[in-house]
Amino acid sequence: MAPNSNGNDYNQTSQDALLPDLPKGPLCMYRAKSSFNWKELLLFLDGEDMIILKKRIFSAFENDPLFAHHPGEELPIEKYRELNFLRCRRLFEYNFLNLQEMMKNPLKIFMLINCLGMYDWSLSAKYFLNSYVFASTILNSGSQRHIHFIQKTLNMEIFGCFALTEVSHGSNTKAIRTTAQYDPTTQEFIINSPDFEASKFWIGNMGKSATHAVVYAQLYTPGGQCRGLHSFVVQIRDPKTLLPMPGIMVGDIGKKLGQNGLDNGFTMFHNVRIPRENLLNRTGDVTPEGVYNTSFKDVRQRFGASLGSLSTGRVCIIGMSVVNLKLALSIAIRFSATRRQFGPSDDEEIPVLEYQMQQWRLIPYLAATYALDHFSKTLFMDLVELQRGLLQDDKSIRQAELGREIHALASAGKPLASWTAQQGAQECREACGGHGYLAMNRLGDIRNDNDPNCTYEGDNNVLLQQTSNYLLNCITDRHQDKTRIESPLESVNFLEDFKDILGQKFKISRVEDCMDSSVPLAAYKWLVCYLLQESYQKLNQERKSGSDDFEARNNCQAYYCHSLALVFIEHTVLQRYHEYTHHSSTPAPLQPVLQRLSALYGFWSLSRHMAVLYQGGYFSGEQAGKMIKDAILDLCAKLKDDAVALVDVIAPPDFILNSPIGRADGELYKNLWTTVLQGSKVLERASWWMEFSTYKPIIGSLKSKL
Amino acid sequence: MAPNSNGNDYNQTSQDALLPDLPKGPLCMYRAKSSFNWKELLLFLDGEDMIILKKRIFSAFENDPLFAHHPGEELPIEKYRELNFLRCRRLFEYNFLNLQEMMKNPLKIFMLINCLGMYDWSLSAKYFLNSYVFASTILNSGSQRHIHFIQKTLNMEIFGCFALTEVSHGSNTKAIRTTAQYDPTTQEFIINSPDFEASKFWIGNMGKSATHAVVYAQLYTPGGQCRGLHSFVVQIRDPKTLLPMPGIMVGDIGKKLGQNGLDNGFTMFHNVRIPRENLLNRTGDVTPEGVYNTSFKDVRQRFGASLGSLSTGRVCIIGMSVVNLKLALSIAIRFSATRRQFGPSDDEEIPVLEYQMQQWRLIPYLAATYALDHFSKTLFMDLVELQRGLLQDDKSIRQAELGREIHALASAGKPLASWTAQQGAQECREACGGHGYLAMNRLGDIRNDNDPNCTYEGDNNVLLQQTSNYLLNCITDRHQDKTRIESPLESVNFLEDFKDILGQKFKISRVEDCMDSSVPLAAYKWLVCYLLQESYQKLNQERKSGSDDFEARNNCQAYYCHSLALVFIEHTVLQRYHEYTHHSSTPAPLQPVLQRLSALYGFWSLSRHMAVLYQGGYFSGEQAGKMIKDAILDLCAKLKDDAVALVDVIAPPDFILNSPIGRADGELYKNLWTTVLQGSKVLERASWWMEFSTYKPIIGSLKSKL
Repeated sequence: MAPNSNGNDYNQTSQDALLPDLPKGPLCMYRAKSSFNWKELLLFLDGEDMIILKKRIFSAFENDPLFAHHPGEELPIEKYRELNFLRCRRLFEYNFLNLQEMMKNPLKIFMLINCLGMYDWSLSAKYFLNSYVFASTILNSGSQRHIHFIQKTLNMEIFGCFALTEVSHGSNTKAIRTTAQYDPTTQEFIINSPDFEASKFWIGNMGKSATHAVVYAQLYTPGGQCRGLHSFVVQIRDPKTLLPMPGIMVGDIGKKLGQNGLDNGFTMFHNVRIPRENLLNRTGDVTPEGVYNTSFKDVRQRFGASLGSLSTGRVCIIGMSVVNLKLALSIAIRFSATRRQFGPSDDEEIPVLEYQMQQWRLIPYLAATYALDHFSKTLFMDLVELQRGLLQDDKSIRQAELGREIHALASAGKPLASWTAQQGAQECREACGGHGYLAMNRLGDIRNDNDPNCTYEGDNNVLLQQTSNYLLNCITDRHQDKTRIESPLESVNFLEDFKDILGQKFKISRVEDCMDSSVPLAAYKWLVCYLLQESYQKLNQERKSGSDDFEARNNCQAYYCHSLALVFIEHTVLQRYHEYTHHSSTPAPLQPVLQRLSALYGFWSLSRHMAVLYQGGYFSGEQAGKMIKDAILDLCAKLKDDAVALVDVIAPPDFILNSPIGRADGELYKNLWTTVLQGSKVLERASWWMEFSTYKPIIGSLKSKL
Repeated sequence: MAPNSNGNDYNQTSQDALLPDLPKGPLCMYRAKSSFNWKELLLFLDGEDMIILKKRIFSAFENDPLFAHHPGEELPIEKYRELNFLRCRRLFEYNFLNLQEMMKNPLKIFMLINCLGMYDWSLSAKYFLNSYVFASTILNSGSQRHIHFIQKTLNMEIFGCFALTEVSHGSNTKAIRTTAQYDPTTQEFIINSPDFEASKFWIGNMGKSATHAVVYAQLYTPGGQCRGLHSFVVQIRDPKTLLPMPGIMVGDIGKKLGQNGLDNGFTMFHNVRIPRENLLNRTGDVTPEGVYNTSFKDVRQRFGASLGSLSTGRVCIIGMSVVNLKLALSIAIRFSATRRQFGPSDDEEIPVLEYQMQQWRLIPYLAATYALDHFSKTLFMDLVELQRGLLQDDKSIRQAELGREIHALASAGKPLASWTAQQGAQECREACGGHGYLAMNRLGDIRNDNDPNCTYEGDNNVLLQQTSNYLLNCITDRHQDKTRIESPLESVNFLEDFKDILGQKFKISRVEDCMDSSVPLAAYKWLVCYLLQESYQKLNQERKSGSDDFEARNNCQAYYCHSLALVFIEHTVLQRYHEYTHHSSTPAPLQPVLQRLSALYGFWSLSRHMAVLYQGGYFSGEQAGKMIKDAILDLCAKLKDDAVALVDVIAPPDFILNSPIGRADGELYKNLWTTVLQGSKVLERASWWMEFSTYKPIIGSLKSKL
């Protein structure tokens, strides 16, 4: 094995064993034209260690009949849930990552989530809601007395879920209405749902399989005082029988638009008694006598700390969205490179990827996939740094600042990534025409499974306010304290040059000078400053006109704070990708293609904000706008011959991708046809054929006389 | 019954019988605040006659157990198809519209398609593909000798489908590869599919139920000469047994992303013999001896005529898309008016419709629904005029021009409407948060059933070229012939003032002067002229630089012809809606709200093109852009209290809407809860419970050693 992980010195034989050649076929035409070696890029991006982990997971699935696909077979939801449960259990047996590996390289956790998701998001969700979300909430919010729950979770003696959301409250978590009344006579908490609107709802794993839940409830001490929202471990089912515990009504919320292998459920509590010790007591505790104590001064502060780990979920969703983009684009680009339609003459048809329109529809999303992939990994590593600090009880200012910054980046990164994936999956579906609408080609599942990424862990539009608030606070602090604007990850440092930046103009006059991501990056810096200034002024104006803070903030969202948060995160993604693709450690043969992706992502994202660039005077004249568009089309054309190889880097093996029109051999129609014929009763006469031949309608016999 | 159909004099008692009050509940708060009477608006828009038809259909469904919903019950695809077939057969018994009614008011056909679609698009598609598409293709492309097929179709003795698309050819219909070889010895055509890539594919009704197909194939006369694409009636199944005819391999293409009640199928032909008379011979015929004759000079012209009726499908899709918008917005707006989250103080939560963001996300789509609804109805009536001319064999120039204009309007109207519905349905889904992701609330089905509207009857992006070509031809003709630019429906007449319009600038300085749709309408006229000029120049430039016509056109799509076609159709939609809402025959009490919708639709659509308005110099300075955004937010705020009543006008009855969170009583949680509990085995333990309790995994036991 080669010593360095970027694989430059990697010897050919091992490389071939790790990364075998792709099958020959119609895609070879494009592969031969690519400007770089896809194996070199893959080794550079992932490193050997990660590629081995991926391979271990994917090979296990491909060789295990439990993970076999059943083309054409219709899986009723209950069966799908059973299969998903069995697969989840099998993951315990595979134990792809042990604790030691995780600690050594936490990015492997991220990779594991994503590899499972490439196979099926229902499986990834089921596994991680139990093994990570449930267990880590107990670890982070509980204490020594709760370790036994974690041990049992990791052994699958119990199965967990995370129960915060209620029927009538999601975003407004503070308004959660489930109660936990402490009873000193028995040293128990009594959990109640006041009514069905307060029942826990949408809880993944709760529908059919969870035995335990972390339940968020308002804690009441004797005397009736409410101490705010706390979390409790509540046993909801008997692990021996999977029957509900006394006082618990637990059920399945039913079919969803996607991720139907996961059993989302609801629970109503009726005087459910749990031991005092089941209170997760890191931020507040109740003595046996019923005295409440906390190290936090006020409820809001304690509440903030107890929900502080929200960034983790959001960062994971960024990664999940990127996976969906990888899957969708692998399918759509391979399809486009092999689907031929029309041509310069009647007897010659060309691949649809040759059309400017098709390039323009798909290649920018490919660029976005690469840029967001890099962002998601680096943000995950930032999060790892934050969590190490938390575990070491780091009370430094830097640690606090890092928490705020990551919260701001994750709160806007999740909307950006999930929306990009949603729109990208839809574009890929449409770009594959009718064949994209066929369920077997998987674009529907990708879109439907991605959809909740826009909603859970915080509605995208609501979350963006977290980021704009962070930026507005930066400016307010600057005005008040005259301190420098800076943050641990430096994402806001450029705001220190606020005034200079706002004075800048777009001055490039030739499209050739416009081919590097430094150009959109400069424009983005101006955009962030401009929208920050506009939002700040708008907010003050609203306040001056007599609105209270709640109303003032609400009236500054559309076109102001909402846009601000988006351009800020687009800037951050681009900044990171620009630096990465221009860094001297990036192998020279890969720099041209990666820099084109960076430039295309930058210009394409920027092109949605051109009106603002004109409005604020950064752009003027006809040429500025035209140049951006020309640059996008030029970059698409330049990347067109690399698109298939770029997709070879990010596509999982055929078995995992599971899309006949997206297979690596490019035998579009052969693969499609075979899969159609594998369907259930494809050629068989309908079971209800006699309904047609025997019972003929009497026309108008039921005509009503209304 | 009142004499006039707009219902102004309609007496109160009949009105109440026809339009009973909506149930009391949480939505009353908004209903009480609305600026107009929803019944008055509904009567004005639809007229009494249409309302009666709708009611007849909807009541029949609600009272017929065959149409009952089965909440929580999972319908396997084969069962769903059976049910859909039985419902389709029942439509013959209901015979909601007889020929006489259709002839008297053809808009009723449109209404029938849409009412069936409001219930279930699979049903609407199944019914219309047989009764209209199959039958009318025979009527329009055949002759007297084919009438018996139509009669049998209308009696359901046979069941038809329309077979054009092949596995490897959709958009490029000319490249269809199925062959029909004439054999004079038996006076038969021999139909063959050269290979599986040429099998007919995606054909609605073909999968399980059709007995006959209109098959498009290349006609070969003895001697081997190809006469181009023709259509033939081919029997594919025996009506007595529903078994395939000799030489026919027919099957089901499998599960789709939506519309799974419809059986889309494929067919391969192996020396299938059909009588000579089955050639649909309006544009070309073969004598018993095998001599080909046609009244058309060349293949292209004949081909054009045979596909001339494509506009019908596209106009219908515009209507279908509008229905999807109506359904999605009814659900999302009623949800938003009853879902409360956060508020100015901790103990008061406000409906999410009160938030500027929620208004901005949804109300523009509501405005689009109203504007596009008007467009779809008026374009349908234009189409009726065209078809009357065709039936009367009108050979006038006006008739030809009308055909070209409608083709241009339908080819861009379909993309605009289907994309607006797709994005609108997605926005509605997200605006309802998690509850929007629950299948029972129907937003997923609406989105998934709408999705193919972007693809069938011509891929949206490909279709837009038809419209831009039409506009470019107008300009070219003007340059060459110096004739006036005018068209029967006057959609391009303003281009005559091309130069004047291009000299105009946006001059309004106060947002109050900006509240009428005349403002965006003027901007749109400039936009169309600007993009037409730009596209024309770009095309000439591409040609000058040596591209052939094929390549030149392909390289002018993104940002040029593609944008041109979209702004042109948006202009047309807005123009028609502007005129309608400002017309003196529109009742005065309704004008304010309708004019606000018109203005909002105009500004909101225009806001996507602001960069071009700046680029081309129509806009300059900071205020122009800000004013458009302020106008949008202002209009949203002004329409907010009307939104529920506007939805009451377009929403079907609860039974048809079939969405617990969208019911007219507004009892959001009660309805949701009830439906959740109606699910199958909601509270029951999973059938596989022993898998959890008995078989525990041995952690890492399957760890691979890769």
